[in-house]
Amino acid sequence: MAWSNANDRLLKERARRVIPNGMYGHESTARLPEVYPQFFRRSEGAYLWDTDNNKYIDFMCAFGPNLFGYRHKEIERAAAAQRERGDSMTGPSEIMVDLAETLVDLVTHAQWCIFGKNGTDATTLAATIARAHTKRRKILVATGSYHGAAPWCTPSPNGVTAEDKANLIGHDYNNVESLVAAARVASHDLAAILVTPFRHEVFREQFLADARYAVTAREICDVSGALLIVDDVRAGFRIARDCSWATLGVQPDLSCWGKCLANGYPLSAVLGNDLTRDAAGCVFTTGSFWFQAVPMAAAIRTLQLIRDTNYLENLVSAGTLLREGLDKQATRYGFELSQTGPVQMPQILFADDPDFRLGYAWASECLQRGVYFHPYHNMFLSTAHTEAVITEALCISEEAFAALRQRRAHLASPAQLAGLPLPPRTRSSNRAA
Amino acid sequence: MAWSNANDRLLKERARRVIPNGMYGHESTARLPEVYPQFFRRSEGAYLWDTDNNKYIDFMCAFGPNLFGYRHKEIERAAAAQRERGDSMTGPSEIMVDLAETLVDLVTHAQWCIFGKNGTDATTLAATIARAHTKRRKILVATGSYHGAAPWCTPSPNGVTAEDKANLIGHDYNNVESLVAAARVASHDLAAILVTPFRHEVFREQFLADARYAVTAREICDVSGALLIVDDVRAGFRIARDCSWATLGVQPDLSCWGKCLANGYPLSAVLGNDLTRDAAGCVFTTGSFWFQAVPMAAAIRTLQLIRDTNYLENLVSAGTLLREGLDKQATRYGFELSQTGPVQMPQILFADDPDFRLGYAWASECLQRGVYFHPYHNMFLSTAHTEAVITEALCISEEAFAALRQRRAHLASPAQLAGLPLPPRTRSSNRAA
Repeated sequence: MAWSNANDRLLKERARRVIPNGMYGHESTARLPEVYPQFFRRSEGAYLWDTDNNKYIDFMCAFGPNLFGYRHKEIERAAAAQRERGDSMTGPSEIMVDLAETLVDLVTHAQWCIFGKNGTDATTLAATIARAHTKRRKILVATGSYHGAAPWCTPSPNGVTAEDKANLIGHDYNNVESLVAAARVASHDLAAILVTPFRHEVFREQFLADARYAVTAREICDVSGALLIVDDVRAGFRIARDCSWATLGVQPDLSCWGKCLANGYPLSAVLGNDLTRDAAGCVFTTGSFWFQAVPMAAAIRTLQLIRDTNYLENLVSAGTLLREGLDKQATRYGFELSQTGPVQMPQILFADDPDFRLGYAWASECLQRGVYFHPYHNMFLSTAHTEAVITEALCISEEAFAALRQRRAHLASPAQLAGLPLPPRTRSSNRAA
Repeated sequence: MAWSNANDRLLKERARRVIPNGMYGHESTARLPEVYPQFFRRSEGAYLWDTDNNKYIDFMCAFGPNLFGYRHKEIERAAAAQRERGDSMTGPSEIMVDLAETLVDLVTHAQWCIFGKNGTDATTLAATIARAHTKRRKILVATGSYHGAAPWCTPSPNGVTAEDKANLIGHDYNNVESLVAAARVASHDLAAILVTPFRHEVFREQFLADARYAVTAREICDVSGALLIVDDVRAGFRIARDCSWATLGVQPDLSCWGKCLANGYPLSAVLGNDLTRDAAGCVFTTGSFWFQAVPMAAAIRTLQLIRDTNYLENLVSAGTLLREGLDKQATRYGFELSQTGPVQMPQILFADDPDFRLGYAWASECLQRGVYFHPYHNMFLSTAHTEAVITEALCISEEAFAALRQRRAHLASPAQLAGLPLPPRTRSSNRAA
């Protein structure tokens, strides 16, 4: 049966009437190639099915939450057992204490936890705790780093006032001089440095943090009394069984978590050290669904798997197999890829592809053959991405490279990116990792 | 077996080590009488069980989410069916379109929807859309009204900067002159009026909005081009099968929803009219778990029950039975209650009880006999609060009044409220409804 997206197109039509632009946020397909489905019907392990019953090997993992495979049996069993007892109640379940103890045991710098739902809840709370602790206002962030979608941190200017961002000071990621200069601007009003563990922006190469950058951030905080906040929402537990900067020997005061914490159940967290406990206790933070017991039950089982299995080593093996396989194929068909970021959170771009025409065309060829790659956002692997699944994906990607070689001369600039200020894509300007 | 809270006290001990103060947010029991359990083990219908196996008739309904009873069979069945297919995926399920269509059909002013997780997501987004639409900054809010826990709206000053709240202008709820004066202060920079449908503050009598206040708010917006936002997160669908201010004949431009939208599953929403569609489409808003399919499936079934059953009339009957029964009992035992707010969202305070000693003691007597009343926060009824359940609760409340009469002379001011700036509690200063 030929690939079709007839149902998805009808759904998009209906959606446009009752949802602005038909969709919003990071799961909108507005900037993706036209063939990408907006809606999905089913998920299992490493696979997704759209509403036209096309099956995909999914390299997005719900943009991170799926760490152990969709509908993982043991995690679902733990969630179901709690669901039989209660979920949203007039107070939390006793398992909230178990979960907090588990996280404090697992994450080196953590001595307490506060749970929320989304990453933005966690980054907003961490910033507030830092201000409560220091009684200062300024927070240093790397220009372009994503820390959530609230007015104070959203990448879009629409509806945002100057006051919302008045207390942020930008600097260049991994640039120690720029970081030091930003701290100097903040001066005695420096509350915190908020930083992602590596640079994972859309539309550009990813790169890891230099140890010197991380150590300097820690030192600035130590000297000034400001707090170091690692925003591990996206990368947490895909880099380490600890806060991601533990791999660099740097411990933050606060860390932000979300995404894969409960393998798809909605849960985020701020973890902190003892220094920050009083400030965390004096801030008012809450949400109607923050105390749900089912996501906490799922998280406890997820964290046991994180602690007790080779999940991380398996992610790295699968990611290495994918990266090496794709590089060989690209070369064979006369292309050069720019694959960056940790292999388990790959960004796959084409070298010398400033308007993304190669990347968009190749991703479309893959999609219509059953592999969901993202042409501009970092991807995520799960433990359901076994060697067999990666091998299956590589068979399809090879066909896509062959098709791309045929179409190469006739490719146009993707219309859906017109007018977008795309970052420069020269490899020398990004220290790719 | 005598009532005991030994397990709960041990859990609180453990919690204090790994959670600041042992708990945070609206489900913290720090300000409740000491006997109140912090943790719960199970919920069903109108009942809760704590970790010491005490069973309670629960008048908090998870602070709102429980509208049709905990673990409602049909809603759980709809959620389970979707869970078998998928929940957090790389895109939303097609049922997101069904849900948006259902809400647009049900809520008069609504022509589009955007979904989030918590109420704060919805109020923050509505404020941002209003600013994007008007290209102005100022938002009028009633002083003391609760609109969420982000820095721009949180009731606590800790960790909050002056800039976070620089674009809010306060006024007195229901005071037309005060509202007009606030609009005059905002002048050409007025983006929106953000208002709860009735006044539901902690520690004080509730009161309904005057039609004149609502109509004036609408007129100010019409004349100035600002947007009227009704924050229906707490009251939505417990006042009307529509936006709550539809009962006053006033349609907002934007409304915020959450709490009971999916009977306990995490879901919130902003609904808007066509005027605001473009602005809603240009704002960037998202969250890792905002596209979860299971809460949307639960919401579709919940909304069908809202549309097709007498749930609202039943809530009002049950609430009336409770209010009238309690008033009679109070009189019989020599007390006077101040019961305010809609009967289905009751606030039960004692008249002439400025330091809450009567209210705290009575609530404690009720709790230890199996009824969970809240001594300072408005409560919520569900359809599981049948006549039989209310009658059972009234038997217990009568025993509590009898016990209170015995203890009356020996009551002390509640220690957990010491130092808290409690609002004045004279009935004349609040137009109780």
